[in-house]
Amino acid sequence: MTRRRQIYEGSAKVLFEGPEPGTIVLYFKDDAVSRNPKRSGTITGKGVINNRISEFVMSRLGEVAIPTHFMRRLNMREQLVRKAEIIPIQVVVRNLVAGSLAERFGMEEGEPLSRSIVEFYYKDEKREDPMVMEEHITAFGWANHHEIDEMINLALRANDFMSGLFLGIGIRLVDFRLEFGRVWEGEQLRIIIADEISPDNCRLWDATTNEKLDIDRFRRDLGDVEDAYQEVARRLGILPESGPSDIQGPHLVQ
Amino acid sequence: MTRRRQIYEGSAKVLFEGPEPGTIVLYFKDDAVSRNPKRSGTITGKGVINNRISEFVMSRLGEVAIPTHFMRRLNMREQLVRKAEIIPIQVVVRNLVAGSLAERFGMEEGEPLSRSIVEFYYKDEKREDPMVMEEHITAFGWANHHEIDEMINLALRANDFMSGLFLGIGIRLVDFRLEFGRVWEGEQLRIIIADEISPDNCRLWDATTNEKLDIDRFRRDLGDVEDAYQEVARRLGILPESGPSDIQGPHLVQ
Repeated sequence: MTRRRQIYEGSAKVLFEGPEPGTIVLYFKDDAVSRNPKRSGTITGKGVINNRISEFVMSRLGEVAIPTHFMRRLNMREQLVRKAEIIPIQVVVRNLVAGSLAERFGMEEGEPLSRSIVEFYYKDEKREDPMVMEEHITAFGWANHHEIDEMINLALRANDFMSGLFLGIGIRLVDFRLEFGRVWEGEQLRIIIADEISPDNCRLWDATTNEKLDIDRFRRDLGDVEDAYQEVARRLGILPESGPSDIQGPHLVQ
Repeated sequence: MTRRRQIYEGSAKVLFEGPEPGTIVLYFKDDAVSRNPKRSGTITGKGVINNRISEFVMSRLGEVAIPTHFMRRLNMREQLVRKAEIIPIQVVVRNLVAGSLAERFGMEEGEPLSRSIVEFYYKDEKREDPMVMEEHITAFGWANHHEIDEMINLALRANDFMSGLFLGIGIRLVDFRLEFGRVWEGEQLRIIIADEISPDNCRLWDATTNEKLDIDRFRRDLGDVEDAYQEVARRLGILPESGPSDIQGPHLVQ
């Protein structure tokens, strides 16, 4: 492993400078944290599986002209992505009531929404990523109206596409969280999907049993967390080449 | 006092059926509550003053064709208003950073905003009036897009007008909260400003000293709460006819 500069370490990933200018290497960790309830731990093999799931979903999105930062997978736990100027807004798309939406309005989890809802959260861990309105985003200069429109447009397109993708393998896409970044293409500033798309930031329920196949199993201490992640990968047809013994993968040397 | 049917009792007002169909009597109490920090108490004479201030501001708004529910003041603590179907959304307009906005993003109180911000909160005391986006409002049927546009339009017009009105008497309108209702005019559904406009729901700072002249004096236990409310009324030229000895007014018989 050649020496390389670490740019950032988050709860689930480490970012390194990529081999070429304008690229970044994402290293997927097994670490998991939950804010509500507060909990932190490890989901064995999560990094390996999320690396594969995110590769798979972002590749498919690219094929329907929904631009993402994904370039190629490098190994079990790493992928190469385009370096983008990250917009400090998390875009959440919801198809069914779940999680904080249920809490906020006292609604039942699983209640269908009359239409998909798009929400914004300001990325600020110290303040637990507060929900914000378009008003705050533009007034504080986090993104302009055009960029917000483009994020909504891409998020809704991704929602349609991914809802179909997952339903095809018996999984309901309840909601998910996206991040976006800006990249220059010639003279043109373009908005692309960044970060990852995986059971860490998608609520995925079995379409028949409503069994949770995502990070909520960890957050709510429901057990069988590793199995749930593997089940999603298995249904997508992308379980890692090597057997489950290898899934733990090499630990990150820091 | 003739018998009349009480419709609702809130923290600061009691609503009675009005003498004619389509009207309501608002009775202004001296009670005050604060959610953060939790505090409840009495601000002597507040009801009398707010009745006058709300009468004054809403009358002036009406004169510039910003429709409100206000019809006429009945006595020291009561006013007659049009009965409207209340939209369960509080619309907040902010000109400077203060209160929950400062907390939410770790900003300094008093920091100017590059432009006015309009926020929505869902009226649900049990859930402490959570902030919502246009997305929630339309998806859950609390108001439609046209109504939201009209609320924003009226709120921004009211903001301009009231900013001028208060600045003329040396007071900065930092932010304020409005409620809206629907009324039928012939075949036409119309959105009008409802509730009250007073130091209970406007942040008012002395333009020179930044001294708070509003409910924050009570919420933050700054003292001189009664004086602050009276100072606003005095500057508007509308201190109650009778002296301060009468300001306590008759207590509400329930």
